[in-house]
Amino acid sequence: MIFNDPARVAALTPQNPFDRLDDGRPKAPDDLLERLKLVTNDEAWAIIEKGHNYQFQFEGDWLHLHRDVPLVGRAVTCAFVPIRPDLHEVVQGIGLGEGRSDGGQNTWVIDTLERGDVLVVDLFGKIRDGTFIGDNLATATRARTGAGIIIDGGIRDFDRVEELLDFPVYCRGTHPSAIYDVTLVGVNIPIRIGNATVLPGDAVLGTREGITFIPPHLLEEVVTSSEETRQRDVFGKMRLAEGTYTTGQIDRGGWAEEIEADYRAWLTSEKGTN
Amino acid sequence: MIFNDPARVAALTPQNPFDRLDDGRPKAPDDLLERLKLVTNDEAWAIIEKGHNYQFQFEGDWLHLHRDVPLVGRAVTCAFVPIRPDLHEVVQGIGLGEGRSDGGQNTWVIDTLERGDVLVVDLFGKIRDGTFIGDNLATATRARTGAGIIIDGGIRDFDRVEELLDFPVYCRGTHPSAIYDVTLVGVNIPIRIGNATVLPGDAVLGTREGITFIPPHLLEEVVTSSEETRQRDVFGKMRLAEGTYTTGQIDRGGWAEEIEADYRAWLTSEKGTN
Amino acid sequence: MIFNDPARVAALTPQNPFDRLDDGRPKAPDDLLERLKLVTNDEAWAIIEKGHNYQFQFEGDWLHLHRDVPLVGRAVTCAFVPIRPDLHEVVQGIGLGEGRSDGGQNTWVIDTLERGDVLVVDLFGKIRDGTFIGDNLATATRARTGAGIIIDGGIRDFDRVEELLDFPVYCRGTHPSAIYDVTLVGVNIPIRIGNATVLPGDAVLGTREGITFIPPHLLEEVVTSSEETRQRDVFGKMRLAEGTYTTGQIDRGGWAEEIEADYRAWLTSEKGTN
Amino acid sequence: MIFNDPARVAALTPQNPFDRLDDGRPKAPDDLLERLKLVTNDEAWAIIEKGHNYQFQFEGDWLHLHRDVPLVGRAVTCAFVPIRPDLHEVVQGIGLGEGRSDGGQNTWVIDTLERGDVLVVDLFGKIRDGTFIGDNLATATRARTGAGIIIDGGIRDFDRVEELLDFPVYCRGTHPSAIYDVTLVGVNIPIRIGNATVLPGDAVLGTREGITFIPPHLLEEVVTSSEETRQRDVFGKMRLAEGTYTTGQIDRGGWAEEIEADYRAWLTSEKGTN
Amino acid sequence: MIFNDPARVAALTPQNPFDRLDDGRPKAPDDLLERLKLVTNDEAWAIIEKGHNYQFQFEGDWLHLHRDVPLVGRAVTCAFVPIRPDLHEVVQGIGLGEGRSDGGQNTWVIDTLERGDVLVVDLFGKIRDGTFIGDNLATATRARTGAGIIIDGGIRDFDRVEELLDFPVYCRGTHPSAIYDVTLVGVNIPIRIGNATVLPGDAVLGTREGITFIPPHLLEEVVTSSEETRQRDVFGKMRLAEGTYTTGQIDRGGWAEEIEADYRAWLTSEKGTN
Amino acid sequence: MIFNDPARVAALTPQNPFDRLDDGRPKAPDDLLERLKLVTNDEAWAIIEKGHNYQFQFEGDWLHLHRDVPLVGRAVTCAFVPIRPDLHEVVQGIGLGEGRSDGGQNTWVIDTLERGDVLVVDLFGKIRDGTFIGDNLATATRARTGAGIIIDGGIRDFDRVEELLDFPVYCRGTHPSAIYDVTLVGVNIPIRIGNATVLPGDAVLGTREGITFIPPHLLEEVVTSSEETRQRDVFGKMRLAEGTYTTGQIDRGGWAEEIEADYRAWLTSEKGTN
Repeated sequence: MIFNDPARVAALTPQNPFDRLDDGRPKAPDDLLERLKLVTNDEAWAIIEKGHNYQFQFEGDWLHLHRDVPLVGRAVTCAFVPIRPDLHEVVQGIGLGEGRSDGGQNTWVIDTLERGDVLVVDLFGKIRDGTFIGDNLATATRARTGAGIIIDGGIRDFDRVEELLDFPVYCRGTHPSAIYDVTLVGVNIPIRIGNATVLPGDAVLGTREGITFIPPHLLEEVVTSSEETRQRDVFGKMRLAEGTYTTGQIDRGGWAEEIEADYRAWLTSEKGTN
Repeated sequence: MIFNDPARVAALTPQNPFDRLDDGRPKAPDDLLERLKLVTNDEAWAIIEKGHNYQFQFEGDWLHLHRDVPLVGRAVTCAFVPIRPDLHEVVQGIGLGEGRSDGGQNTWVIDTLERGDVLVVDLFGKIRDGTFIGDNLATATRARTGAGIIIDGGIRDFDRVEELLDFPVYCRGTHPSAIYDVTLVGVNIPIRIGNATVLPGDAVLGTREGITFIPPHLLEEVVTSSEETRQRDVFGKMRLAEGTYTTGQIDRGGWAEEIEADYRAWLTSEKGTN
Repeated sequence: MIFNDPARVAALTPQNPFDRLDDGRPKAPDDLLERLKLVTNDEAWAIIEKGHNYQFQFEGDWLHLHRDVPLVGRAVTCAFVPIRPDLHEVVQGIGLGEGRSDGGQNTWVIDTLERGDVLVVDLFGKIRDGTFIGDNLATATRARTGAGIIIDGGIRDFDRVEELLDFPVYCRGTHPSAIYDVTLVGVNIPIRIGNATVLPGDAVLGTREGITFIPPHLLEEVVTSSEETRQRDVFGKMRLAEGTYTTGQIDRGGWAEEIEADYRAWLTSEKGTN
Repeated sequence: MIFNDPARVAALTPQNPFDRLDDGRPKAPDDLLERLKLVTNDEAWAIIEKGHNYQFQFEGDWLHLHRDVPLVGRAVTCAFVPIRPDLHEVVQGIGLGEGRSDGGQNTWVIDTLERGDVLVVDLFGKIRDGTFIGDNLATATRARTGAGIIIDGGIRDFDRVEELLDFPVYCRGTHPSAIYDVTLVGVNIPIRIGNATVLPGDAVLGTREGITFIPPHLLEEVVTSSEETRQRDVFGKMRLAEGTYTTGQIDRGGWAEEIEADYRAWLTSEKGTN
Repeated sequence: MIFNDPARVAALTPQNPFDRLDDGRPKAPDDLLERLKLVTNDEAWAIIEKGHNYQFQFEGDWLHLHRDVPLVGRAVTCAFVPIRPDLHEVVQGIGLGEGRSDGGQNTWVIDTLERGDVLVVDLFGKIRDGTFIGDNLATATRARTGAGIIIDGGIRDFDRVEELLDFPVYCRGTHPSAIYDVTLVGVNIPIRIGNATVLPGDAVLGTREGITFIPPHLLEEVVTSSEETRQRDVFGKMRLAEGTYTTGQIDRGGWAEEIEADYRAWLTSEKGTN
Repeated sequence: MIFNDPARVAALTPQNPFDRLDDGRPKAPDDLLERLKLVTNDEAWAIIEKGHNYQFQFEGDWLHLHRDVPLVGRAVTCAFVPIRPDLHEVVQGIGLGEGRSDGGQNTWVIDTLERGDVLVVDLFGKIRDGTFIGDNLATATRARTGAGIIIDGGIRDFDRVEELLDFPVYCRGTHPSAIYDVTLVGVNIPIRIGNATVLPGDAVLGTREGITFIPPHLLEEVVTSSEETRQRDVFGKMRLAEGTYTTGQIDRGGWAEEIEADYRAWLTSEKGTN
């Protein structure tokens, strides 16, 4: 009841074009995620919001460690509420019944993470006593996922977490206190992070600008559209350097038919190479 | 999957000492709710927080219509997130499949309300385009419940809703826009309203000071403790007027044994009368 | 250059369907403004935003004196900036050259107000040293306009201004200081008040909920649409009382053809009476 | 060391023109305080800020119970900080050594209040666990002072405190929790309440607009200046009613010499009557 | 009517000591602007605020790209309001009638920029849908002006704009959305940027600390005063190194007459060299 | 009366285990302060809050210059209020009577600083006109203390202060204005900095995460506990490298008795070396 049932997760995400993970989440392919690292939030937004009217998939204004390391992966979502003893007892009973650690409900989720997962935590912006990870759990999360973490709340051990140079962390603040007085109410349920709505299995794209949560059925379009933009840029600059076309022919909205044909031919030949 | 299953609602609230409603919520007795109308938030807090360490059951800072009408009832909870077309389609499909109105997801919940229910809505503080009720839905909610409503979001038709003098509304603001761009993600699930955690079936107590969400298993203690305070006050003033005891004997922390006995005897005789 | 030229004001408002005042502002007829007093902000919004896609014409969150007195009238706009001595000297020179008072740039505008005007002041939310009116200027404004005032800034003499019971004031706060360190940069220019864009001659509608600034070419539709709603309500309740129709026939989205015909006939006969 | 020494209080307020209370505070005469009830914050500001350049003596933005009851009296100041066990032990030791109650450091100050005192409490805006008074201490404060209270923090028992209709309370919010986790660091020391600096013995003036803290040496000027304004108003209206002078002669900045003489003569004769 | 008339711009800035640009703005000489790059905001403030009582010419708290590149230039001002269809149509009509691009009103201003201009944009702090520039317009602005840009609003394409290492951008935030739902109401009119009042042709000085908008008639004094401070520093250190004077003679408020004479002689000889 | 009496300072800090400075402050030994540089805020918090229930000794959210330089030292506290002419005159009289500079009350405290002191200034968050130090006073503070400064207020000369690379400054903002309109009310009194309570002589620990104010009697425990953590880390890694123990033996909560004995033996031998 806390960890969402795989069948329910699947029912929440019926447009998923990919395989699913054991927990029911869409499994965006590693290859697409790798290629996502070169996409900007603006390119993603253009497809998601302008193309498909998803208006609430971006969130900015983070305390952002390691801002030059792009964060990509598959979202694992979880949500907490302020502690309530009767509810806490129910949750704790369920968790222990499922064999989970009695070391803290935050570790329950971390213990399930796999390579390529990005944990997205709704801690309702709590910073003091809302520090989802410190030094040790940051190290553990990094080891399990090879990715980073997104916390609408705080972290502790700031100085030492900052030393994990390849571990991008997006949080709202830092405090030396431990996580305290909160109860986990769901894993892999729909959550809200600021102005963004996140579902389990969303493809996460974090850059210096902020984070976009990409619905899986839009991921390929986001990636290929960005790549096409970059490809055309390469082709255009090459032909300009060769003197084949003029700036006036290349630096404009749409190319003439023959240049377009040239581009497509080049693209095909390149694809063999890549 | 949107309206929580009665069995799951029951599993969330195992300490419920009362019967349950058909939807699984604890059914605090009408009599206790009626008596709750005379309790203050401070008396409730003393039992819940000081006595049982529930620290996150009160929320203040409301735009409060009809502040002199106490609000009591059984909580129906629901939560929205910013709209997300794929999720919205899933939710809409489930709702229509269950025969719910296509007039707006907010009406789904209102259509299920019964006498004594208090709807508690997590709209993440959205006011513009976050107006959960206007004139008509306020009238409908009032007719179905005979109680009021609590919205962490906005209302519209302020002037006309204010004319419903016996309908207490707690919201965060008012705007003429209609509710828009939000998706319902759960009914009768645990929700957070500001700093308070609310479960389905909580006994709601709203006064001029704010709102306390009382776990059902603590309701009777809250009510009887408040009543005892008031009874002792009546008894003490009566005996003072009769000249039986002095102020020094009555206005102190604990009464002498004989006065205590006198009080208990009076209480028994009174109970026959009431 | 500070008071906008009448020709420019006219050029800003080419869709005005009414006569113009001497200063170029659209002159919404007194009759329409009087009828506007019965309209709610929600009815106005339905026409302006839903019907015509004007999304930024409402502003709420006011410190609102005399909230039960509706405020209607024709907007006179003005805008201030933080003082800048060189600019202030230019403005002061222009004003004195036009024969305006040396008693304060705020009085320049008040001295030009006429019956039915509603002054709308952009003071960028300044409260201390941003008190556009006190006791005396409130009295003067009330005497000249017979309406009220809207200030995105402060007022002083709160207690005494509150005694002017028929003078609705919408402001952001109160402070005993006088207006100070600001420079007037325009009268009857487009201004922004919170999230609303206001043009000179807009029909102002202020109620307990907030303020809508109605573009003149939409005023008649706003008023008549609201009236039709109210007329149908009267007719429906009358026929229900007479037992002519059932609740099921009346309390629904659209009426049957014959009831519609009955309504229109009644409306015509009523119009003779009114 | 917590309750400031009378000699030090006197040294802080060397310009005091009045007697002193036993605790060293300036003792503004009852008569002046009574007359202060008719003064507005704006009149006080005109003398204090415009006349004497005291810019930080007013504070607005209060949750204000019983706004129609003016609050006047002599300030008793006190300040708290977030609890610190070593400091708390020091303070507690001093207090108990002075024979103060072990019921809470907030009661220490309340127990010393006298008729005409207005307690001004710096609780750094804390509301939850920052409720300086509830039902009982409000009643006690009212009984001792016959005045009201100013708290830069919270209160509890809101509904019942609101029933004390002649007890003006200025606070920042309300919460059912008790005061907790704070340490008293000084009584009758200089404190800051929002943007205002308050000294022990200041004459407090609270109205619907907010609060002015008047340095004692400026009190008489504040009161008499306000009275003269009101006297001239009475005289002017009387002479206008009698037809002695015209509106043009009376409604202007300064009166002609002969009217001024007439006024002064009337004033003298009136003073005998009053 | 949107682009302010050159004659009106000149009338707004009568104290301008320099030539004017074709659009009427004061043309601060390139040489002075170049020398301004070494001035700090603190030195500018000392002249402008302390020396001439201009209190509202500085604004801090920016999201600041390329903080180590000083930003200097001549201000081009513009202001937007939330979109209003009738006004937008008027503005669009005027712009197209003047032959401006139909690609967005933000490009109208960018298309007029010249070398040394610094565009200052009042977008009322809007970030989502308030992104005045992205990758392309940033590149265009940089190419036209050789300077930077100041936006009281947002930018998009953050990652790529950040790659333009010599293009200082001061904005309030970043979002992947495009600029949307705003209407341009004026170019080269007086605007307010936070607490600062800006006029067309102001000399802009942006450093890590924030931005000062320097009225042209104070520019030379700002520059030479800063230079003198620096010159005296060089001279003093040189003479100390030579052993001519002691620290006590140099490190004090004013120099003795003979040192002063020595300094002035040195200064004259240096000027020939520079 | 402004500079707290040494005897009073001592009475405020009776648990001090160290010598005292002439002004009465606890004198934490240089050696402990030096070793404190390697401690993190999280380690300090674990001792202070978890071990001894001091909950309000940490403050984050700073504008932090030179974040990589740890700040340690002995706190000198001081507090300001908004200026009040009568109080200012008293304070100024006292200060001049004590032979202090007439150059500004902020210099009074700076003039008393000694090596190892960290000045902690309560300027109630004021930034404009609240700039406690600029270029010169920063240089002076650095020269006297060899440490840094903590200001709940602003600084000026940002660019030049930032050039003092070994001088950590924690403040709330930057502005070119000078400090103005404030009055010093106490030196070495208890103060509140955000959520932290600071006493004179507290051991200050500032890192990238924020600042902990450590009560002197807890300092040694903080330092040694941190050192033990680090020692065990060194020992464990060494023995793992030597192959003496396995990861399973070392990476766990408590070590087996024989490993513990080995560790203690190594520790003793090491201590000779260090």
